[in-house]
Amino acid sequence: MSGDQRAIGVFDSGIGGLTVLRVLQARFPSEHFIYLGDTARLPYGSKSAQTIRKYSEQNLRALVAQGVKAIVIACNTASTQMREPLIDGIPIYNTIGPGAKAALSVSSRKRIGLIGTRATIASRAYEEEIRNLDPVATVVTQACPLMVPLAEEGWDGDPVTNLIVYRYLQTLLADQIDTLILGCTHYPLLEGSIARVTGSAITLVDSGEAIAAAMKHDQARGIWSLRDDGDQSRLRVLLTDGSSNFQDLSKRILGQTAPTPELVDL
Amino acid sequence: MSGDQRAIGVFDSGIGGLTVLRVLQARFPSEHFIYLGDTARLPYGSKSAQTIRKYSEQNLRALVAQGVKAIVIACNTASTQMREPLIDGIPIYNTIGPGAKAALSVSSRKRIGLIGTRATIASRAYEEEIRNLDPVATVVTQACPLMVPLAEEGWDGDPVTNLIVYRYLQTLLADQIDTLILGCTHYPLLEGSIARVTGSAITLVDSGEAIAAAMKHDQARGIWSLRDDGDQSRLRVLLTDGSSNFQDLSKRILGQTAPTPELVDL
Repeated sequence: MSGDQRAIGVFDSGIGGLTVLRVLQARFPSEHFIYLGDTARLPYGSKSAQTIRKYSEQNLRALVAQGVKAIVIACNTASTQMREPLIDGIPIYNTIGPGAKAALSVSSRKRIGLIGTRATIASRAYEEEIRNLDPVATVVTQACPLMVPLAEEGWDGDPVTNLIVYRYLQTLLADQIDTLILGCTHYPLLEGSIARVTGSAITLVDSGEAIAAAMKHDQARGIWSLRDDGDQSRLRVLLTDGSSNFQDLSKRILGQTAPTPELVDL
Repeated sequence: MSGDQRAIGVFDSGIGGLTVLRVLQARFPSEHFIYLGDTARLPYGSKSAQTIRKYSEQNLRALVAQGVKAIVIACNTASTQMREPLIDGIPIYNTIGPGAKAALSVSSRKRIGLIGTRATIASRAYEEEIRNLDPVATVVTQACPLMVPLAEEGWDGDPVTNLIVYRYLQTLLADQIDTLILGCTHYPLLEGSIARVTGSAITLVDSGEAIAAAMKHDQARGIWSLRDDGDQSRLRVLLTDGSSNFQDLSKRILGQTAPTPELVDL
């Protein structure tokens, strides 16, 4: 099978999805990526299912128009409303299936915690997916609206963050979870505080790693193909609004200066 | 001069503007109000000036189409980008001028603190307005991105909130402010924690009271007229998205169940 030189599209409601991009760049180092952040309309996590679906479709269409070969929905909230496996024949990867599968594969006692935005928790998408895969698994959930702004402030490991994370997680801890799905792209940015609260007995599941595994699996089966022209890999960033903290956050997440974002109107 | 039976329009990026509506309802108890919350596109506080301006214009136009007699821009972030006094001959009240005037009138040493969203602080709108009115006044500012989600969680007076408010305010306290402008409609919902940190020597200035005073002044001058038909006052709520936490928050802010919101598309 010959190579496919097209880029992989990644979309998120904003900038948090760069935590997923970072993992994908590490797992697929020769690939081109186009990252689309809907910064004008973020956050999705407090919006209704219909609005999330409408915006997500617009984002998918914008990436299809860029000529990508695969699309990753990095945003968990968008993923709950966009479960189609294909758009115009192009494979779509969302966080729900891979995250559920990864949680079940590492969970010893099948007691799985899930944290996310209000909309992600309300959708029950992860619970349904996990129970479809394993009807005896237990899922306990908690919406954590303060964790996105804490991540954006960069307060990982801060005593205030530890306190807030502990407050959100205490019922999940009382329910004796052994695995915790970080059901929002921002949460890996608070991994210090989260791990401090959960301790080493609880395994953290990150959307980026779960999606990369699902993509690797499909690529091995020939559902999509890697590049093979030997050109240096490239990253383009498209944003719907010139967000004031993009440069700061992107540098913190990617560990280097991101390319200047191109503004797009959806 | 005869009465004007039309409603007063109030718009906000979301639900926080109900703190302003609450004050206006108390000051103008016989008036009809139409509250428009742009819940589909909130928050404005992390968006660029151009996007905030574009969305604010659409909101103003939607209220004009409802046939209102005056418009209040309850959102401080929107106010920074929408300083026109009139639209189609209808008076517009924003938070900046009234807030600046109120702060100067209560400040004894003219050392004024301002807290708000990233966009409000970056705009420097309050600083320019205050310095135009009093060139020797000192203004010190701090963006407080965590305070909106803390207010929406309902954590006023909570030790975690007290800690975060203290952290945000410590440089302003070191600068010996005597007055603090609560430059975001959500902040009155954290007045317990804020007052605990500032103590009684610092006067808090609230946008709702400042705008009500400016409207009273104009009404006395005949720029707009009260209703006089004796009908019971009414409130309509228009939202751009069926926000999951509207009922909770509106009950907490208004002290009673708000009318069922009508969904509008802008």
